[in-house]
Amino acid sequence: MKIHRREISLSTKGEVDIIDITSRVGEVVAESGVSNGIVNIFCRGSTCAISTIEYEPGLLKDLPNILERIAPKDLEYEHHRRWGDFNGHSHVRATLLKSSLTVPVVNGELYLGTWQQIVFVELDVRPRERRVLITVLGE
Amino acid sequence: MKIHRREISLSTKGEVDIIDITSRVGEVVAESGVSNGIVNIFCRGSTCAISTIEYEPGLLKDLPNILERIAPKDLEYEHHRRWGDFNGHSHVRATLLKSSLTVPVVNGELYLGTWQQIVFVELDVRPRERRVLITVLGE
Amino acid sequence: MKIHRREISLSTKGEVDIIDITSRVGEVVAESGVSNGIVNIFCRGSTCAISTIEYEPGLLKDLPNILERIAPKDLEYEHHRRWGDFNGHSHVRATLLKSSLTVPVVNGELYLGTWQQIVFVELDVRPRERRVLITVLGE
Repeated sequence: MKIHRREISLSTKGEVDIIDITSRVGEVVAESGVSNGIVNIFCRGSTCAISTIEYEPGLLKDLPNILERIAPKDLEYEHHRRWGDFNGHSHVRATLLKSSLTVPVVNGELYLGTWQQIVFVELDVRPRERRVLITVLGE
Repeated sequence: MKIHRREISLSTKGEVDIIDITSRVGEVVAESGVSNGIVNIFCRGSTCAISTIEYEPGLLKDLPNILERIAPKDLEYEHHRRWGDFNGHSHVRATLLKSSLTVPVVNGELYLGTWQQIVFVELDVRPRERRVLITVLGE
Repeated sequence: MKIHRREISLSTKGEVDIIDITSRVGEVVAESGVSNGIVNIFCRGSTCAISTIEYEPGLLKDLPNILERIAPKDLEYEHHRRWGDFNGHSHVRATLLKSSLTVPVVNGELYLGTWQQIVFVELDVRPRERRVLITVLGE
């Protein structure tokens, strides 16, 4: 059993930027030499998330629309009042979507459906430089 | 430390079919011989999810009702317009609920509450044949 | 590669109590002797969840407010009708937020942002004694 990790950087465009990181995760799996195991993807920060989606232009609009229904930008947030950074909705959305995802590795490949991509979701209101840690465990 | 996995198949009834897979996950843990570690459950596809729930008939109606509040079926989805498959809500719900769950293994048993079952959630609008990968890591 | 775990207990105040468990997770990582790997945090029970948040007083009000928008307490729940325990919303919220979180360990430290804490979220309507299992894997 071995462990291998790499931190990647992302420059995001702000709210709600959805970035396909599947190939970058696959590269880290390849360089790990792990054939069978798991890979964890974790984003540092409290206004971003990792999940999967069919990465096509329609859903890149639909997901932000639904996030706006769930936690609208123009609600009153206590976080706004205290800190004045107007991203209370970003924080709550991140807690719901969560910062971590674990995907199986099978024969050196990510175990994903054809239309299932791993995405970083920028939930903050402004462009950010982000760090994501990819950790592979297996043999 | 060892690793063991098995892929299981599920025939689902379409939207929103919630299937208790706890005993099947437990079987894979048992055949792995792992006493202490973790088990990851991952569903292939962009319109399904894995989570936990108290598996009783009331909640099997309540969860779909709340998913309908979050991402209603009859909203306008860009995914619909592009692909005409009328499951934009299914995709968004899957991204929110997520395709992966990791559960501890303690003395060869799943670490779960008495009323806490592991479930596969079919979010697509039609019956599907599904594949779920169960990966056990531990010693 | 080694594995180490510890179960911790929490006394919660009921709905919606959000408890910062970052330092307790860090202690289990420290006692594990694992420098590089992952740590899984899992809550036993079907009315609680684990996620991350910036742990500051504003968001501790905002998250409950949004959970109330998503799954309001005073809706009709089938779970209420069957069991009369008036926590159907607690169960649905727990299924959405999920009971498991995996965080990377780097040089013996949790890989988290400065304003990103690991939290236990009590979703049940009454104070509870809770158990959370922390499992560290790595080398």
